[in-house]
Amino acid sequence: MSAMNSNDLPDPMNLQLTPQGGLHHLLSLRGLERRLLSEILDQSEAYLSPLGDAPVRTNLLTGRTIANLFFEPSTRTRASFELAAKRLGADVLNLDVNTSSRKKGESILDTIYTLQAMQIDIFVVRDASAGVPAYIVDNVAPHISILNAGEADISHPTQGLLDLLTIRQCKGSFENLTVTIVGDIAHSRVARSAAEGLTTMGVGELRLVSPPALAPDPALMPQAVIMHDLDKGLRGADVVMALRIQRERIDDVQGIPGVEEYYARYGISHERMKLAAPDAIVMHPGPMNRGIEIESSLADSPQSVITRQVTNGVAVRMAILAAVMESRQSR
Amino acid sequence: MSAMNSNDLPDPMNLQLTPQGGLHHLLSLRGLERRLLSEILDQSEAYLSPLGDAPVRTNLLTGRTIANLFFEPSTRTRASFELAAKRLGADVLNLDVNTSSRKKGESILDTIYTLQAMQIDIFVVRDASAGVPAYIVDNVAPHISILNAGEADISHPTQGLLDLLTIRQCKGSFENLTVTIVGDIAHSRVARSAAEGLTTMGVGELRLVSPPALAPDPALMPQAVIMHDLDKGLRGADVVMALRIQRERIDDVQGIPGVEEYYARYGISHERMKLAAPDAIVMHPGPMNRGIEIESSLADSPQSVITRQVTNGVAVRMAILAAVMESRQSR
Amino acid sequence: MSAMNSNDLPDPMNLQLTPQGGLHHLLSLRGLERRLLSEILDQSEAYLSPLGDAPVRTNLLTGRTIANLFFEPSTRTRASFELAAKRLGADVLNLDVNTSSRKKGESILDTIYTLQAMQIDIFVVRDASAGVPAYIVDNVAPHISILNAGEADISHPTQGLLDLLTIRQCKGSFENLTVTIVGDIAHSRVARSAAEGLTTMGVGELRLVSPPALAPDPALMPQAVIMHDLDKGLRGADVVMALRIQRERIDDVQGIPGVEEYYARYGISHERMKLAAPDAIVMHPGPMNRGIEIESSLADSPQSVITRQVTNGVAVRMAILAAVMESRQSR
Repeated sequence: MSAMNSNDLPDPMNLQLTPQGGLHHLLSLRGLERRLLSEILDQSEAYLSPLGDAPVRTNLLTGRTIANLFFEPSTRTRASFELAAKRLGADVLNLDVNTSSRKKGESILDTIYTLQAMQIDIFVVRDASAGVPAYIVDNVAPHISILNAGEADISHPTQGLLDLLTIRQCKGSFENLTVTIVGDIAHSRVARSAAEGLTTMGVGELRLVSPPALAPDPALMPQAVIMHDLDKGLRGADVVMALRIQRERIDDVQGIPGVEEYYARYGISHERMKLAAPDAIVMHPGPMNRGIEIESSLADSPQSVITRQVTNGVAVRMAILAAVMESRQSR
Repeated sequence: MSAMNSNDLPDPMNLQLTPQGGLHHLLSLRGLERRLLSEILDQSEAYLSPLGDAPVRTNLLTGRTIANLFFEPSTRTRASFELAAKRLGADVLNLDVNTSSRKKGESILDTIYTLQAMQIDIFVVRDASAGVPAYIVDNVAPHISILNAGEADISHPTQGLLDLLTIRQCKGSFENLTVTIVGDIAHSRVARSAAEGLTTMGVGELRLVSPPALAPDPALMPQAVIMHDLDKGLRGADVVMALRIQRERIDDVQGIPGVEEYYARYGISHERMKLAAPDAIVMHPGPMNRGIEIESSLADSPQSVITRQVTNGVAVRMAILAAVMESRQSR
Repeated sequence: MSAMNSNDLPDPMNLQLTPQGGLHHLLSLRGLERRLLSEILDQSEAYLSPLGDAPVRTNLLTGRTIANLFFEPSTRTRASFELAAKRLGADVLNLDVNTSSRKKGESILDTIYTLQAMQIDIFVVRDASAGVPAYIVDNVAPHISILNAGEADISHPTQGLLDLLTIRQCKGSFENLTVTIVGDIAHSRVARSAAEGLTTMGVGELRLVSPPALAPDPALMPQAVIMHDLDKGLRGADVVMALRIQRERIDDVQGIPGVEEYYARYGISHERMKLAAPDAIVMHPGPMNRGIEIESSLADSPQSVITRQVTNGVAVRMAILAAVMESRQSR
């Protein structure tokens, strides 16, 4: 399975809601209505407290067990989900799946069945193959919830939600905003989930700026303006999101012989941000390649909301865990 | 140390009980009386709740610390012990022993002494060498308990207990049952612990079916009928347990040139199960090689109790942790 | 950065205390006054309970999150900090930093910023490079505390504290003691932190015994007597601390062709301990190379306080966590 034929996959829209419209699974921001996204963002706000204060805690998931099933390595997303679950009172089981059962040839579904039989009922899944989360959803018991923590180049819905929350906090609403996402759009699940969420929230204009070789399939992001000239893309933008570029990818891009050249053409810098709105914010999903896709001092400047995104990430994940737990009552 | 001379090892029977007959360590099902096994199974039932409900929790081990010392990789057994301990309120320390102290040349006993000095007093140990759990028992302070989570080809007592619990739940009693275990008996600690437990519980007939090259030492399982013809072994069986076969082992078996041939001769299928009793159950310790030792659709059929075994595994481990904690009062 | 020019690094003395003299970070025992060290040792005593009893627990850090950031592998120190944090009620996040973000090229500071944004506010850091803990301290938000869990050859302050606690428990005071540390002094952060702590506490005489090639820079330990003859070094000693020697290092030492020769010249044995005071104690930071730097039976004899050091390690780390938490009130 690859990103290219991902439109052939089962539509997550039909899988992730209960008949009553509650959140049963989180696979994608596609198909989630503006009302539901807004409720999740509202709930997330309730899970925020000032840095330095003790984090917000509840007993909502006390006695429940969450499993982190990461088939790709991750520090930040795994840690964010782990803290979100613990702060709701849940037990967390971290499974380094590469080094155990898969070695023994067990299928992912048998791993899920086994953990389900241990009374784990929320699974946080990251996998490099498209369609894995929806495939699991299709096969598990109805009381189980699957949360997508990053799926191939396809979807990273909690990242999309934390981006929405951060933008809403800084800008109040979405209608009149110009949002510019810059970098390797073609391979970015972050860009795709952000684009889906922003479209649903009614963003004014969404610009996707990349080298031609890293442009998205226009059919996948029909509402977005696809561009290749960063200066044009930044003009008047209210929100600028730089994406992580994998160094290997740079070498594959014709006409961009190295990281300096990439930075010169697609790096977000203080200088370039002068083209954007005076109060524009700078975002990045992390981990950053400082000096490649973003000027290092810009990432640490007051314009940057990068660490705020991380803080919002825990809150959003708490809200998602709370939402799927709440929808159990009516399933 | 190898499985072959395991009868020369110190008899775990003399090590695992307190003078009052309580469970101090769990090394093997050998030497545990029917009364004690029945009590553990009874206690396990109290730790079960319906799937989808919150798991049963107590504060029995609150403030205590359990260490998982797995010198062989494991997902399911490690996770099962971790959840059992957490649901009893204990703190759990997971130690990936391969990648740290052993690198530095520390002996297993020094690792135990160090953790014991940190006031960890229950150790869950998995090791590829025979005799390691008993060796540790011989050397630790009297307030420590050692639980064997898989020992070479020798012993896997909590697996044996969960098998007993599952059979008792499905069949009521053991006296009139025919139980057939199929596969690589020679190298299976699962088969050995199940055989020991079933013998103690007074099983009607125990059949061990394997290719001749993978048959057990008859001296180790004197009560069992050793067979090589699967059809004969299945005739009238009430319980059929398929064992995991390592693909490398198949290649070593003369006359069985590959997995298809293995499946044809020793795979448990719907078709073959017609030879067993009409209400026979199918078991497997996991992780399964679907299509090799067991037909995939049979593993998911109503006849299969494989996920129930997993659920029982957590309950049995909770009962064992509770039992060794209780026996502390009288030590 | 290497141990040789570590005097050029920012002085941790200026970094680790609050203006009111409370402990903000723990980077080094250098610069911590005798009064403060004594208070920490006194507080540590309150966290000790008899082996076999449930460990002492409080709710002092309930709701707080501690991150273990170990850039070098470790079992014992990581486990000790994890247990200390859990027994104070904190949530603990273990990050195996080698296998995730660093692979993706993220800087250590961005890892800290990310975790800080997740409302983690105490970081336990082990790193093979000198200066890393102080560098982090220089760059984090003021509410964060950094605890050094082992820094190159430079500093291991919680090890130094547990050594002080163990000596004080056994000997009552420091003034009239002769303490002899034996082994690879040049590369030992354990020796350096012990030497710094003992000097502050006013130890009678501190002897550092090593092969000439493994002697310390005298400028780094001005109060110590540097020696090469073990028999002389042991004469009348009240405390003898053997250091772990890396086998590779032995091969580099001219005139010491192997481990037997090393043991013959620098190994601590029952026989050699006859030179020390009759009630002398034997210490080792672990993990031990039995038969190389210490006679195996001596390590297990009543003279040895090695496992007591481990027990004290958890108590000392609880006291440090409590101290940095307490100093937050006044920061």
